[in-house]
Amino acid sequence: EVKEGDSVAGVKVPVVRMKFGEVAASSSVVILPVCKAEEEEKEVMEAPWECKSEGEFGEVVAEKGWKRWVVLPGWEPVVGLKSGGVVVSFSDARVLPWKVNRWYKEEPILVVADRSRKEVAADDGFYLAAVDGGALGFKVERGSALKEAGVKESLGTVVMVVRPWRGDTDNQVAEEDWE
Amino acid sequence: EVKEGDSVAGVKVPVVRMKFGEVAASSSVVILPVCKAEEEEKEVMEAPWECKSEGEFGEVVAEKGWKRWVVLPGWEPVVGLKSGGVVVSFSDARVLPWKVNRWYKEEPILVVADRSRKEVAADDGFYLAAVDGGALGFKVERGSALKEAGVKESLGTVVMVVRPWRGDTDNQVAEEDWE
Repeated sequence: EVKEGDSVAGVKVPVVRMKFGEVAASSSVVILPVCKAEEEEKEVMEAPWECKSEGEFGEVVAEKGWKRWVVLPGWEPVVGLKSGGVVVSFSDARVLPWKVNRWYKEEPILVVADRSRKEVAADDGFYLAAVDGGALGFKVERGSALKEAGVKESLGTVVMVVRPWRGDTDNQVAEEDWE
Repeated sequence: EVKEGDSVAGVKVPVVRMKFGEVAASSSVVILPVCKAEEEEKEVMEAPWECKSEGEFGEVVAEKGWKRWVVLPGWEPVVGLKSGGVVVSFSDARVLPWKVNRWYKEEPILVVADRSRKEVAADDGFYLAAVDGGALGFKVERGSALKEAGVKESLGTVVMVVRPWRGDTDNQVAEEDWE
């Protein structure tokens, strides 16, 4: 479950750390296509748009083939994705546009984005944006920063950030550096 | 977990019914490519052979794109698949070559097969075989039956059969009709 408080203050993007066996303690899971952050922009746009769940075993059926997939617990922001959902896999969390502590540099993150919501609508929203026209992959940008740069359309709205499970982390919220 | 006794007597193919939220109470999950039983034989051979788990989020990376996937709990026979693992989705369980009860006709099953083990080795083993040269899809056959028919090579050895979750089933083993 996504807990209250697991989000950056004032913004509706939950930052959640995976718990052991959590893909898992949820009664439902979601399979989403994954792009590597280092890939070119076109990859995120080419990932399958429609991924329907089918039948009693919840098979996912995409409208086209894709190589890289990830399973996430049935968190509300993830289950709420209609079509256009995509996961971008970053090798470290410095890509996030808020102050991060040392932890972040040492762990990978997954950014879940909704490609059906490209408009840079909210100043305090977070968006998936291309770096250097897409040649250098992706980054996560604040709506206000994109607007200042005159960017009106992003690659998608960030709906969630997932951090990996860490066995030695008791207090999951306290270790975050809130902006 | 795969329980003792959840297999057809004398044969090492566990028949397991999904429990609610089980993809799920396991600390690990496995993503496997799925073929529909009604498809032609070539589909099962074309499904990606190598599906590696990568990184801290357990992303699956296939050697080629594929449209249909399923998530299973980290059951031993499934985790034990190296390469060549595939799931065939049947709309009902009458395809199984042992005596089944009425339940079976009303529920879909998943057959997990290992395409790297094609040889029809054991009389009491179960194998994925093509129906009518592949034009009519797949069936599950006993090793002895294939040998009698002179078939030495199957599409793969069946390692597991998965039945869907049923809310009103208390005694999961007793309802099976053992051969």
